[in-house]
Parts: sequence; structure tokens; C-alpha cells
Amino acid sequence: MLTDAAAALWVAPGDGHRYPVLAGNEEAAVVAQLASAHRRVVLLADDNTAVYARAIAARLPQNRLLQLRVRAGDRYKSRAEKARLEDTMLAAGIDRQALLIAVGGGVVCDLGGFVAGSYMRGIAHINVATTLLCQVDAAIGGKTAVNTPLAKNAIGMFHHPRAVVLHHRALATLPDEELRCGFAEAIKQAALAPDDLFEVLAGWLAAPTGRLPPPALVLRCAAVKAEVVAADSRDEGVRQLLNFGHTVGHGLERASDYALRHGAAVSIGMHMEARAAVLRGTFPAHDLETLLAALEAAALPTVANRPFEAVWRFMQRDKKNQDGAVMMAVPRRLGSREPVSGGYTQALDEAVLREVWC
Amino acid sequence: MLTDAAAALWVAPGDGHRYPVLAGNEEAAVVAQLASAHRRVVLLADDNTAVYARAIAARLPQNRLLQLRVRAGDRYKSRAEKARLEDTMLAAGIDRQALLIAVGGGVVCDLGGFVAGSYMRGIAHINVATTLLCQVDAAIGGKTAVNTPLAKNAIGMFHHPRAVVLHHRALATLPDEELRCGFAEAIKQAALAPDDLFEVLAGWLAAPTGRLPPPALVLRCAAVKAEVVAADSRDEGVRQLLNFGHTVGHGLERASDYALRHGAAVSIGMHMEARAAVLRGTFPAHDLETLLAALEAAALPTVANRPFEAVWRFMQRDKKNQDGAVMMAVPRRLGSREPVSGGYTQALDEAVLREVWC
Repeated sequence: MLTDAAAALWVAPGDGHRYPVLAGNEEAAVVAQLASAHRRVVLLADDNTAVYARAIAARLPQNRLLQLRVRAGDRYKSRAEKARLEDTMLAAGIDRQALLIAVGGGVVCDLGGFVAGSYMRGIAHINVATTLLCQVDAAIGGKTAVNTPLAKNAIGMFHHPRAVVLHHRALATLPDEELRCGFAEAIKQAALAPDDLFEVLAGWLAAPTGRLPPPALVLRCAAVKAEVVAADSRDEGVRQLLNFGHTVGHGLERASDYALRHGAAVSIGMHMEARAAVLRGTFPAHDLETLLAALEAAALPTVANRPFEAVWRFMQRDKKNQDGAVMMAVPRRLGSREPVSGGYTQALDEAVLREVWC
Repeated sequence: MLTDAAAALWVAPGDGHRYPVLAGNEEAAVVAQLASAHRRVVLLADDNTAVYARAIAARLPQNRLLQLRVRAGDRYKSRAEKARLEDTMLAAGIDRQALLIAVGGGVVCDLGGFVAGSYMRGIAHINVATTLLCQVDAAIGGKTAVNTPLAKNAIGMFHHPRAVVLHHRALATLPDEELRCGFAEAIKQAALAPDDLFEVLAGWLAAPTGRLPPPALVLRCAAVKAEVVAADSRDEGVRQLLNFGHTVGHGLERASDYALRHGAAVSIGMHMEARAAVLRGTFPAHDLETLLAALEAAALPTVANRPFEAVWRFMQRDKKNQDGAVMMAVPRRLGSREPVSGGYTQALDEAVLREVWC
């Protein structure tokens, strides 16, 4: 099934299955080829990605196709939208042999993956990632979810896609702010790369060769995600390091009522958590400087600029909390995937975070 | 954790994990012991099983406990109830380390299992099975679901419990009709037992020693389910044989708007499907007689008594259908778990089923 598109890398989540991450310039053709084995295909897109979905739809027999649309925005990653999509699929007679193709960023892939994972207890799906953030992070690894009024990503499941397609040309239409958010997660992945990826990415950010990062650089960041997921599919060990910056980040998002974007919040979160880790003696001070320089080169915000208490309150409901204690995931040093002190997360004490807060 | 209760059997769903099925007379104590490792415990019951949940709750520290209640009945196995339970858990600060205990029959265990499986992408749960049907079937195997207006069990996931407790004393309060429904699934499991279980069960049904089947007999039926699940956790092969009687059965349930109970529908379904298989030459005629005698000994209905067309229409939307063809799962003969002809399901042609319909 991969004759036309080289599998750029493979994700092996450890249950015997593995799936390719595909990159190239013929995205619609690649997706149509992946879909050719399925009698019915469900094509999900949002307002922003409908144009890419149409290019895929044009290559598929119309009588096999069910096209679904959600409005763009995180608020539509909801139980209500999930139910609406499912009911439409049931009414259309979509069965277990069908394939769902999610075309979009993190919202569409998270929502589409959860629909696929729970429809008749699971059907196959493909993520066509159209944002940088999705390409280096959300599309890979099988985490799916919807938000609830009380918490983001509160309800979901692990359901790995059959393939991930990185839609490089779609990046050209992303607003600068959305691109920056993608760089935040790219920097986070690079922080877990044992080779020279952090240096290469930071170098490119400091002296970019264009508005978009080279596909090869995006792919290297995606590969870090793939490797970490392969080592710990169920988020019970090293995968927790992918949450670097996310404890503070999620708190910031919630404290801003999600006015602050995810990537921006993660950028500030990585800075704050790394500062806390330096104070705890679990992260090198010079790596904090290197990290901060990369975030600043990407024009990402790095300080919270809001009262500590408002954010801390929300952090106390984080999914990673253990027996009531707030936990954070910070690598031992840039490039390390080793446990910090017995585990991959460490306690984030209120007093410590308050001291480094800015 | 099993010092007081002997693990009667183990379920090994093949992903490296395994879980015990526990039987005994100290159900509440056993459950409380299983829960002792968890800082927070969610205890879910319905109106019928609240009494058993209270006995468990009395043995747990009240400050660790969140008690949830659903109304009794399949209509409450819904997305709306699932969301209500999840929101209550989120508001109570239930985290990923919590344990959910579902106390009830198939409805409570299916719903509770789906809540546990998708809450923060999965928390641990235990099924305390209080009906015969649940003990020999629903509680074991990790299938969870909710109904939708368009289809039963349409949305769900695989999520294995950490333990299953067979609440023998709860059977004493079951109405006769509910007990009979349990016998239908018990007969179905026995039809897949390579040893003398079918003969033993049929013998007991023909000359019962009391109103309730002996715990050892229930356990043998549960063990068949455990073995089949262990061989094919994801329902991709031999596990499909557990759907014996369910293609016609689900059609009957839907055609009656669920006035016909699941076990009764499965009883008729096994009879109709076995008749169709005899006509196709894929099931021995003498085994059909043996099966029919057992169903009749259990006082289960065996004929549809309703027009073929009304049922067939619903069967065309069965989850097991392949590329539009209606499929049924009938063993090659009583006691066999071998594939029938290349697969574990076989086509159920409209003309064949119409001919044997009664």
C-alpha cells in the first residue's frame, strides 16, 4: 500500500501492530491509495481543512464516501459533536470494515480518533495532519479525546491510527500564531532527542531559511514522538516525558479560559517547569538557558504574566496528579529520556513553583 | 490481594495482563480488599443492586468513596448517563489512580466499564456480577458499550476489568425470567465447551437440584468465556463464536422494540441460526436436537412467532455484517471452536433463514 509514498518512519506502539508516518507532495493520492481497501470511507474535516478533504474526496468513488464536517475550534471537540458524527455514520450504515480519515489539526484528529475508536468498539482510521502541532505531536501516538465543561481531554481512549500523513503544503496556509504553537511542541520533542536535533532546530529557528520548517526537520521531530510512543504506548513510563511543560501549560490555558493557545501555554510551561526543576536540582541551569533561547527564537511567549494562584488552582486538577500531588514531567537534561528519580514525573511543589514564577 | 478469596479462574486477554474471576460467599469483603490499594473508589450500582453496593460501601472508608447510582434498565445504558457519571466524577476530583466498581448486571457492567475505559483515557475497574447472564457472559471479556437511539451497543470500547466477582447470593433475588435469560447464555457458552459441560448443564436443566444453578456450574460456563476471550481478546477470530444466536437474536430484540429480553432472543436466535446452519450443511442435525432440548428444558422460547421480514430488516444493520452481507456465528458442532469454512462467521442468506423460520 506504500508503493507511491515512501513511509518516512514507522510507529510501533508495542502491541504487534505498527503504522507508517508518510510525507510527500502527493497527499491526496497517498490517502486515496490507503483508502482503496475499504468499501466505505468516512472523511472528516473542519471548516479550515475542507479544501484538503475535497482533494481526497475527488479521488474516491462517491458511492463509498460519507463526508462529515465539524466547525473549526476546540469547543467542537465535544461529546455532542461526537454523538452527532456517530449518529450520522449509523444512519448511513457505516460498518466495522469502514475507514475514517481525519483531515485537520489536533482537534479533528483527537475527535475523529475517538469516534473511530469507539464506533462499534473500533474501526480503522487515518490522521491527515494539516498543522505543524499535529504533525509533530497530536497525530502520532493514539491519544484521542473530547473536552467536557469541567476539563479538557477528560474523556477519551488510546486508539492508534493505521497511518499518519503529514500534509506539508497545508502548513503554508497556517497563521503565524498557529505555526509558532507548532514550534513549541517541536522544541519539546527535540528536548527529548538524544542526537543533535535540538541544536539543529534551534539553529533553524535562530536563522530560518523560510517561513516553514523543512519537511525533513518536521519529520525528525515527529520521529521523536514515534520513538517515545513505541517505548511506552500506554503512557505508563517514558511517554510521560512528552508532557514536559504541560502541567503548567494546561493550568495556564484553563486560567485564561483558553484564550491562551496550547502551544504558547506549553512554551511558558516548559520554561516555568524547567526553572522549578533547576531549583529542585533536577535540571541543569545551562540547559534552561539553551531551552529559553530556542523558545525566544521561535517568538514564543515564555513568561506567564498572570498571578500564580489563579494558575495553581487549575493545576490541582491535572490528569497526571498522583494521590492529590501535582506532578510535572521534565527531562533530566536536554536530550535525556531517563527517569528523573525513580519515575518520569516529579512532584511540583507549590512553594517551588511560586518562587520561580514570572 | 487474593488471600481471602480463591481466584476461581483467570482471564488472560493476551496483552500480558490477566485478571481473576472470583467466587465465594464473602463478596463484599473480597471487593473491599481489592479496593484497598486505591485512594479513591467509585461505586456504581442501579436501583436493583444498591443493596449489594451498600454492603461493599460499609467496608470502605467513606472519605475515599464516591457512590453513583443509575436507574435500572437498558435505556439508561446511554450516552447521557455516561456523561452524567463522568461529570460527577470530574467534579469530585476522581483521578487516574481511582478504581471504579460496577455492581450489577450487563447494563451496569457495560456502562461502568465504558465510563472507566474512557475516563481520563482509562482507569481501573472491577465488575461485581449480580445476574446469571452477567456472571457467565457480560462481566468477562472487556466489551463495554452504550446504546444509541439507532443501535444497541453501537458505541463502546474494549476495556478489561482488573477483576470479576461472581455475586452468587444476588442470584437468589432474580425473577425467573431473568434467570432464564442467564441460562440462554450459559447454554451458548456450554455449546463451545470441548468437555462434557453441555451434557452436565443440560442434565441439570432437565432435573434441577434447586432454583439456582450450583456455583461450580456457573463457574464452568464463565470459564468458557474466559478461555475464548484469552484466545482472541479483540474479537477478530474465535471470539466471534460467542455471537452464536446473536445475529437473529439482536434482530428479534430490535423488531420487538426490546420487549423481548436479550436471553430469550438469543435462545430463539441459536435455534434459528442452528437450523439455518443445518440447512447449509455446516451443523449436525442431531446437535440441533440436543441444543433445542436444552433450551426447552430451561423453559426458554425457541421460535420467533413473528414475521420474518420485520426481523430481517434489522439484521441488515448488524455490527458483524461484512461488506453488506449478514453473517452469523455457529460452531461446526456442539463443543467445537474450530473455524467453519475459512472463518468463524458464515453468511446467513436471506433465502436460507426464511426457509427455516418459525
